[in-house]
Amino acid sequence: MEILQVEAPLVCTQRVSGLQHVALKVLRNVKTGMRQVAVDPVGCREGNWVFTSLGSAARYAAGEYSVTTDLTICGIIDYWEEEAS
Amino acid sequence: MEILQVEAPLVCTQRVSGLQHVALKVLRNVKTGMRQVAVDPVGCREGNWVFTSLGSAARYAAGEYSVTTDLTICGIIDYWEEEAS
Amino acid sequence: MEILQVEAPLVCTQRVSGLQHVALKVLRNVKTGMRQVAVDPVGCREGNWVFTSLGSAARYAAGEYSVTTDLTICGIIDYWEEEAS
Amino acid sequence: MEILQVEAPLVCTQRVSGLQHVALKVLRNVKTGMRQVAVDPVGCREGNWVFTSLGSAARYAAGEYSVTTDLTICGIIDYWEEEAS
Amino acid sequence: MEILQVEAPLVCTQRVSGLQHVALKVLRNVKTGMRQVAVDPVGCREGNWVFTSLGSAARYAAGEYSVTTDLTICGIIDYWEEEAS
Repeated sequence: MEILQVEAPLVCTQRVSGLQHVALKVLRNVKTGMRQVAVDPVGCREGNWVFTSLGSAARYAAGEYSVTTDLTICGIIDYWEEEAS
Repeated sequence: MEILQVEAPLVCTQRVSGLQHVALKVLRNVKTGMRQVAVDPVGCREGNWVFTSLGSAARYAAGEYSVTTDLTICGIIDYWEEEAS
Repeated sequence: MEILQVEAPLVCTQRVSGLQHVALKVLRNVKTGMRQVAVDPVGCREGNWVFTSLGSAARYAAGEYSVTTDLTICGIIDYWEEEAS
Repeated sequence: MEILQVEAPLVCTQRVSGLQHVALKVLRNVKTGMRQVAVDPVGCREGNWVFTSLGSAARYAAGEYSVTTDLTICGIIDYWEEEAS
Repeated sequence: MEILQVEAPLVCTQRVSGLQHVALKVLRNVKTGMRQVAVDPVGCREGNWVFTSLGSAARYAAGEYSVTTDLTICGIIDYWEEEAS
């Protein structure tokens, strides 16, 4: 499960029906600078360090298998040193 | 879900039957320059910023699980700064 | 779906039974130089530009789900500029 | 299966219910420096060299398919030279 | 399917029960230098060039779907030029 930092909510009006009304967050890999979009069933805030599940596990983690995501936040890390990520 | 920009439609006459008649788009990762082909169930236009699902989620997102894609556009981002991608 | 160029057929006498007698091709990512092996249900020729499905979609695209591949050619691109890949 | 080194346990109070009460470890790829979070059904200690399964195999390896992980430790390597990794 | 070279058998006494008693090999990507662990149902020898299946296909290729691997050797390539890999 990848370790990423929450950057911002994602606003997306036109989406496939499979995404339903799930909350979406933009996450950032601080090491590579790459951003990704993830489903957030946990309720994260900007700046939180989280870890995510990819692939079919992301649908299970979203709480409903029919959500067509490939990345879902699985938990907020209690303590993480930014410089170590 | 990866964040990519729509570049152009893809013309492909010889395809496996599993791809049916879905619309295909060439997407570009602006950071790495890599291009990929995705199924487009949303109806994107050139220049749109989209996010995509990989893997088995791509078949669910395509609206029909039997479509043999591994990448499908899940939504158009309302606002995205190119320089930030 | 990744965009790759067909380089050559692959000769492989000792294979797992799950691969059956499918035709195998060596594909090359022109940007990175990496080569991969894919099942070819389309009938490509050397030099063709193709796009491929990864993961479980590759087994569906192979026409028979029991083929133990993780990469299958899904279509030949009608026109592709090599320098743009 | 990727070869990684165990760095530390991961403390995570807020997690999706799908992760249940599994033990989590931070693993490090010594070559790239990237860290990941994995489920540990084996009982590893800091410094152990392990190999992991990704994707749906990670759920099977966790001992219970409903655990929403995408990375699980599958075994501890008896002997591994750090400099060779 | 990735093209890799067999380096050595892997000795692993402590493993999850899902791995059963399958033979494990350390494979090396000659281009990147990265090593991975794979299930070997073919019977490879050191130095062989092989191609592998990732993901759920790896479990099918292992001959028994319950083996919790994400990488399995699918075949030995009859002829491969090291410098071309």
